[in-house]
Amino acid sequence: MAKFYLGVDLGGTQIKIAVVDDKAVIMEEFVMDTDIQVKPIKIIKDIVSKIKNMKYYKNVKTIGIGIAGDVDSVKGVLRFSPNLPNWKNVQLKKEMEKLTNKKIFVDNDANTACVGAYWLDLEGKATNIVCVTLGTGVGGGMILNKKLYTGTSGTAGEIGHITVEPNGNKCNCGNKGCAETYIGAKYLVKRALHLMREHNSYNILKLAGNDKCKITPQILSLAASKGDEVAKIVWAEAGEKLAILLADIINFINPDHIVLCGGISKACNAFYKPVYKQIKQRAFKSAVDSCQIIVSKYTNKLGVAGAAMLAKN
Amino acid sequence: MAKFYLGVDLGGTQIKIAVVDDKAVIMEEFVMDTDIQVKPIKIIKDIVSKIKNMKYYKNVKTIGIGIAGDVDSVKGVLRFSPNLPNWKNVQLKKEMEKLTNKKIFVDNDANTACVGAYWLDLEGKATNIVCVTLGTGVGGGMILNKKLYTGTSGTAGEIGHITVEPNGNKCNCGNKGCAETYIGAKYLVKRALHLMREHNSYNILKLAGNDKCKITPQILSLAASKGDEVAKIVWAEAGEKLAILLADIINFINPDHIVLCGGISKACNAFYKPVYKQIKQRAFKSAVDSCQIIVSKYTNKLGVAGAAMLAKN
Repeated sequence: MAKFYLGVDLGGTQIKIAVVDDKAVIMEEFVMDTDIQVKPIKIIKDIVSKIKNMKYYKNVKTIGIGIAGDVDSVKGVLRFSPNLPNWKNVQLKKEMEKLTNKKIFVDNDANTACVGAYWLDLEGKATNIVCVTLGTGVGGGMILNKKLYTGTSGTAGEIGHITVEPNGNKCNCGNKGCAETYIGAKYLVKRALHLMREHNSYNILKLAGNDKCKITPQILSLAASKGDEVAKIVWAEAGEKLAILLADIINFINPDHIVLCGGISKACNAFYKPVYKQIKQRAFKSAVDSCQIIVSKYTNKLGVAGAAMLAKN
Repeated sequence: MAKFYLGVDLGGTQIKIAVVDDKAVIMEEFVMDTDIQVKPIKIIKDIVSKIKNMKYYKNVKTIGIGIAGDVDSVKGVLRFSPNLPNWKNVQLKKEMEKLTNKKIFVDNDANTACVGAYWLDLEGKATNIVCVTLGTGVGGGMILNKKLYTGTSGTAGEIGHITVEPNGNKCNCGNKGCAETYIGAKYLVKRALHLMREHNSYNILKLAGNDKCKITPQILSLAASKGDEVAKIVWAEAGEKLAILLADIINFINPDHIVLCGGISKACNAFYKPVYKQIKQRAFKSAVDSCQIIVSKYTNKLGVAGAAMLAKN
């Protein structure tokens, strides 16, 4: 009987579940909404009852769970999640193992995304990769010498909090000038609103149906591709900071691949073209030459496929 | 018969050689001057004739060589070294193996220093360490999951070229604002000369016997410990940049230890006290809590002992 692996991507809005084969090919998948009001154990039981009804469940050897937040991956405990306010010190591994009788692995979503990118985008053929998640926050995961590297206390890869401006924007983490405060989705929108007023130019707002709450990085991308000056400035500024961050990663880790994923990774050319140029100016030539930077084609599947492959390895 | 390992630290001024046991305890050592005028093969032959006369040479299993510069560690070729102008594409491994009939390993000196720190300062008891060399340049090496990590093309750990000031000082590498251009020995002296003029305060110069060419980081340390304001500013500024660099390392790698070595690592308290304070403000608490920052007690031995232990592993 073929051996499969099951992944759960436990987010604040949706829970994605997939069964994959040993090459991360998705055999079966489904999505359910996350009810953040109910108790964690209720959601855990819901997930288990759903997965037990899956066609390939009998072939599932192990289960992996990826979740945003502070995860103790050794004990399989979710200490805290910004997206799931009721989930505090939840014994995910213990509870799930009790209910399924299968071995459970838990890690944070930046690490599962990295494992997902390694299998889906790179087909398991890379050696040293850094996966950079560009979304509301900026996160990172690393596979070094073909193994997930998570550091001493499980917090390695916090690249969103690398300083790109010594006395820059205040970050929630307590630092100043973190990459996240210049490239994160919230900042891009805030910066666009500021520049619209400064330039007295409101094309972006029009594209968002005159509702400033509807301005997203997607709208900013659309505006830039239509030639809007404000949007172009927003992306140029963010690109400068992303170039610093990626050059730091290249000089420090010397990876064979950097995979960009998350909502913002699909941004316009106005964002990427200068980024690549500046990386070449900032990073070591031999390290740049041996590193391919790609945008993931599977952003929405990385978490769930990665969680499953985490359970395999 | 006990098995020992031999290390060679091939510098532009001196060549250090040592035989160590399997715990990096130095059994026998000597130092010779480097004649940078003669051909590399002459120096290689000199080294081999010296080591063959060592008391414990008969116990030596393998030999490691550490060298500043661009090293192809797989092929054991020194492509280029800033300190040894005649050494270009030297087949160190091949030549030495021919002359000794022993297996030879070659790596750059930042990596051998890291291996040395792992064994001498940490007694091989750490898991994830970053070794930061603070000297004329700023370099780095990493041991992750107890193994030397050198990256895809052997350039991992180039932490001296992490950007700490986006539009800062020009660096020889082509980037702007590299850590090295704020913490490297040359910069500290240059900055002190500038500030002496600006503040019309020349205590540092007096300590250097009124010869500005004799101003070193050691003199700057002495001046700061005597309360000189200019020296204190120099160290405070450099400390700010070092704190950014170390916080980046902690957030990114989440190591259990950072070992500082090299001439500047022995600087005064005026340098270190604010560094530790700023790291706590800049880096993630759990990552800071799980990381010990120490100054190597063996700076001058790290390269040679590390080269030998590299040959062991």
